[in-house]
Amino acid sequence: MTAPRFGRLAVAGVGLIGGSLALAAREAGLAGEIVGIGRRRERLERARALGVVDRWTTEPAEGVAGADLVVLAVPLGTMRALMEALAPGLGPEAVVTDVGSAKRAVVEDARAALGAAFARFVPGHPVAGTERSGVEAAFATLFRGRRVILTPVADTAPEAVARVRALWEAVGAEVVEMDPARHDRVLAATSHLPHVLAYTLVDLLAGLDEHEEVFANAAGGFRDFTRIASSDPVMWRDICLANREAIVEMLDRYGEALAAVRAAVAGADGAALERLFARAKAARDAHAAGREAG
Amino acid sequence: MTAPRFGRLAVAGVGLIGGSLALAAREAGLAGEIVGIGRRRERLERARALGVVDRWTTEPAEGVAGADLVVLAVPLGTMRALMEALAPGLGPEAVVTDVGSAKRAVVEDARAALGAAFARFVPGHPVAGTERSGVEAAFATLFRGRRVILTPVADTAPEAVARVRALWEAVGAEVVEMDPARHDRVLAATSHLPHVLAYTLVDLLAGLDEHEEVFANAAGGFRDFTRIASSDPVMWRDICLANREAIVEMLDRYGEALAAVRAAVAGADGAALERLFARAKAARDAHAAGREAG
Repeated sequence: MTAPRFGRLAVAGVGLIGGSLALAAREAGLAGEIVGIGRRRERLERARALGVVDRWTTEPAEGVAGADLVVLAVPLGTMRALMEALAPGLGPEAVVTDVGSAKRAVVEDARAALGAAFARFVPGHPVAGTERSGVEAAFATLFRGRRVILTPVADTAPEAVARVRALWEAVGAEVVEMDPARHDRVLAATSHLPHVLAYTLVDLLAGLDEHEEVFANAAGGFRDFTRIASSDPVMWRDICLANREAIVEMLDRYGEALAAVRAAVAGADGAALERLFARAKAARDAHAAGREAG
Repeated sequence: MTAPRFGRLAVAGVGLIGGSLALAAREAGLAGEIVGIGRRRERLERARALGVVDRWTTEPAEGVAGADLVVLAVPLGTMRALMEALAPGLGPEAVVTDVGSAKRAVVEDARAALGAAFARFVPGHPVAGTERSGVEAAFATLFRGRRVILTPVADTAPEAVARVRALWEAVGAEVVEMDPARHDRVLAATSHLPHVLAYTLVDLLAGLDEHEEVFANAAGGFRDFTRIASSDPVMWRDICLANREAIVEMLDRYGEALAAVRAAVAGADGAALERLFARAKAARDAHAAGREAG
């Protein structure tokens, strides 16, 4: 695979993901110039000072002018307004992609906002990140060995998909393609549901009378389990809203499963508990072994 | 604090916790001889070969003969039978302690099984561990900087508590004392509930039609969140049975909290979701910062 070359790369939203992609693209020599687009001048200036972008603007249409590739890395709730604002500035060949964690909503936004450029919009989702946020948390190797899911639709130009695929592969990611609805179901299960569960647990414990004693006596397992509850609240609010159908379905299934476990605990059904825990351990061990091998 | 010295230390159950304590005690020069007690000869012989114990036996009463300190590190479900079997072998000065994750049940077991030696039984719980199990996973530094909760009752001899406290402090742990019922509520919140939630999540996902695709697209957050689902199923079955009252209460509170979040997602109540996620993030960040500082 020959590494792609983008004369001008525009990144809207220079936080953990957008910033890391900019750094990775620069390090791999993929971009001539990198333009940052955002709303807060002090954050954008910080990104420039850190060498993440070459220049910046708060005007989306101006920022995408002359760009070969435009990456949208903003919370899902601001995606449509951003697309509407930048659409007039897009060149006739510009490819647009995003990094949002829910894909059906983004496809709808793009279809409504991008006009003819929708054919060159490639919905994407790098399944990578940390619980930290902001450009200071960005690093060039974030995507190495990580999976990126592209969810092109019938109208998406194959050349545009190929360009975006090449970008992600050039920064070390493994790219797969998936239907947007399937993406949203799969991610609801492995990412959105766990985040909701972790946030809910920490909030519940923080509200207990003995919360200080509770947190003081927590072990390493608790720290790992709740790491994702340190993620950005606005980003996760938007994911819950954008993918609410799949998340509610998973929450309902989880609620049923938990009620069954509750019944087994209350009924002192040791055999049922051991079966369930052993099944889960086997699945989790196999998953962990696969990740280490992969 | 002068490091204690035990001429003979008996450890019943030479797995991750019992084995690590034996290694730590040896490394700190706290024990003259370390005797392993267990049921499976090949596991005990493995512990001897690894240098974790000096000798071993499958006869509890024989194993505790002449021991100054006896540590019970077996799953909670086998605790009472073990206590009954070893009681006849205890010397008149021997101190007994355990490492079980639920304390009211162990206190009941000890009161019923140990007779006069109950006054020298110090219920204990090192809040430490990994998702691995078995003597091969044991390491001498497991307890360094970790918390150990002792839950003596009115009948417990203060000298016995002091001996056990000194042992744990000598291997690097921070010791606190707590009422058994309070211990069980606090641990239900930070440890038992999270384990049940993680096991339930992994088992639910493993049962989905698209489970292979689901696990293949999971990110690092999922790996951390589900690490505790790789814990020993028998140990966790026993914890759920031994502490079922507090666990059921926490499961009910969690179920209510999750239903509220589900309603906010289904009703697209972004403000409620953002408030909850922001509260949880603040609590979790404060906890993580405290742990790093501590």
